[in-house]
Amino acid sequence: MTMEIALGIDIGGTNTKFGMVNRAGEILEKGSLPTGKHETVEEFINALSNIIHPLIQKFSDHQFCGIGIGAPNGNYYTGTIEDALNLKWKGSIPLARILTEKLNIPCTITNDANAAAVGEMKYGAAKNMKDFIMITLGTGVGSGIVCDGKLIYGHDGFAGELGHTIVKPGGRKHWSTDSEGSLEAYASATGIAITAKKMRAEFPDSLLNQYPETEINSKTVYDCALKKDAVAIEVFRYTGQKLGEAFANFVMFSSPEAILLFGGVIKAGDFLLGPAKFHMERNLLPSSRGKINLILSELPEADAAILGASALVWEEDFC
Amino acid sequence: MTMEIALGIDIGGTNTKFGMVNRAGEILEKGSLPTGKHETVEEFINALSNIIHPLIQKFSDHQFCGIGIGAPNGNYYTGTIEDALNLKWKGSIPLARILTEKLNIPCTITNDANAAAVGEMKYGAAKNMKDFIMITLGTGVGSGIVCDGKLIYGHDGFAGELGHTIVKPGGRKHWSTDSEGSLEAYASATGIAITAKKMRAEFPDSLLNQYPETEINSKTVYDCALKKDAVAIEVFRYTGQKLGEAFANFVMFSSPEAILLFGGVIKAGDFLLGPAKFHMERNLLPSSRGKINLILSELPEADAAILGASALVWEEDFC
Repeated sequence: MTMEIALGIDIGGTNTKFGMVNRAGEILEKGSLPTGKHETVEEFINALSNIIHPLIQKFSDHQFCGIGIGAPNGNYYTGTIEDALNLKWKGSIPLARILTEKLNIPCTITNDANAAAVGEMKYGAAKNMKDFIMITLGTGVGSGIVCDGKLIYGHDGFAGELGHTIVKPGGRKHWSTDSEGSLEAYASATGIAITAKKMRAEFPDSLLNQYPETEINSKTVYDCALKKDAVAIEVFRYTGQKLGEAFANFVMFSSPEAILLFGGVIKAGDFLLGPAKFHMERNLLPSSRGKINLILSELPEADAAILGASALVWEEDFC
Repeated sequence: MTMEIALGIDIGGTNTKFGMVNRAGEILEKGSLPTGKHETVEEFINALSNIIHPLIQKFSDHQFCGIGIGAPNGNYYTGTIEDALNLKWKGSIPLARILTEKLNIPCTITNDANAAAVGEMKYGAAKNMKDFIMITLGTGVGSGIVCDGKLIYGHDGFAGELGHTIVKPGGRKHWSTDSEGSLEAYASATGIAITAKKMRAEFPDSLLNQYPETEINSKTVYDCALKKDAVAIEVFRYTGQKLGEAFANFVMFSSPEAILLFGGVIKAGDFLLGPAKFHMERNLLPSSRGKINLILSELPEADAAILGASALVWEEDFC
């Protein structure tokens, strides 16, 4: 029997990464191309096709099942990318259809956090779970919700925007959506930097004041926390509280077995996750306490996006 | 072909209502028995069986498909009622199994708000919807979440506890869960009465002050609002704001086509729903604005619980 393989493509604002992956989650070959330097989406799709086509040829002794794409605002139902904030091409881009037609290959798309959730379910920490919530904590806060073994897409394909849920009504204004008090405004890397800058201004003795403004980020806050800087520790505690309160609300929605965390921000470890766990438990109904696991992704960070995108193919009946 | 029928049973703290219902949602016969006066659950189940048995005999020329039960803390997976606050029998009660064994009839159970959601999907306002959220606004706030045509149960059967989501961190303490700032603490009939009592104390001129403490409820607040009492109107506006903010968060979770409302509190009409709609829209992502319908239940209030319970049977493969 020939080995079944899928192509996973992760479209980011700067680079697009791709990899040929088998059902076990092994990446057989990978590569990347720049996203942002292509002025039009047509140019980008041409460049992408010119790479994919020979790649598939190269693996012609395998059974090629299809292409899975993770992209900002990728819509599963329509196969489009819809007005993604961090892509320069605006409007509705029917990427899945164009690729399918160009290459005569089945293609599916969803947003990057949904892809991450499916990746964890197929290859990672959620392998035996049917109900979990994936939260990606990077520049932004993304999410993918799995109920009874299926991603929740909602009536229009845009379910699972948990980074935009309001955790503090009337709170911090979001830099791009204008909403007040969203989870992303506090718990993303961007939000953590804002919190750190505010807090260090109030405490001149904090080690955080040894860095120029541009170097305040979750990495430098972490370094200061390791040195027992009370302000840096408080930055993560405060962020963790907001996360934990949000997690409790998420649990009341879909009662997952676990909340899975992924992304650069989780490197803060227990400085962040300790308070998150505490405040989640505190806000859960007594009957749910002690039952929800906070788990870290098991996929290697560099490859997780490709793996997640490829895993979308196994969710479909392409092979 | 004989007509398929199901028995719907709604177990409340005071009374248990039941009805024999066909697939079209017509109630062929209904009745009730007291719940609370039975000291033990065994006594209650005996009394219930003694009514059900002859009822099924009576409809022996129909095809009887099974029993659906809506009960506080009813658990779909285990068929149990788990420590329901408003029932006097504590612990885990394996009601579905006992009834199935006693009567040799398939029986399914879930909580009352989930049953209401299925009722709307089979017979009511959600007939053609695959993604919606049911919110019941009564003494408490309940919810049932339907995604892709299926109720969300979560890993333990207790998904959809949206009344307990925190809408104001550190806010009003809940009278039984001790949580701070839950939706139920504000938007239930109980919560509205608390808000009204607080607000009328600040405004001696309010018509609300013409009622004794015990008569302050959503009905009397509504009566005062109709008479243009500014405080009464503000009670509903404030409640509506909390509801609308919560709805926006719910939408970011499962991106439903509609939020369906049911229960005594919705009689407040636009005094409540106008502000709820406004604050939901205000807190939605721009891409979701104007797309989510707030709809009122289409089931007659007196029968909705029986209808919802009976509809659970059509969700199963009992017939």
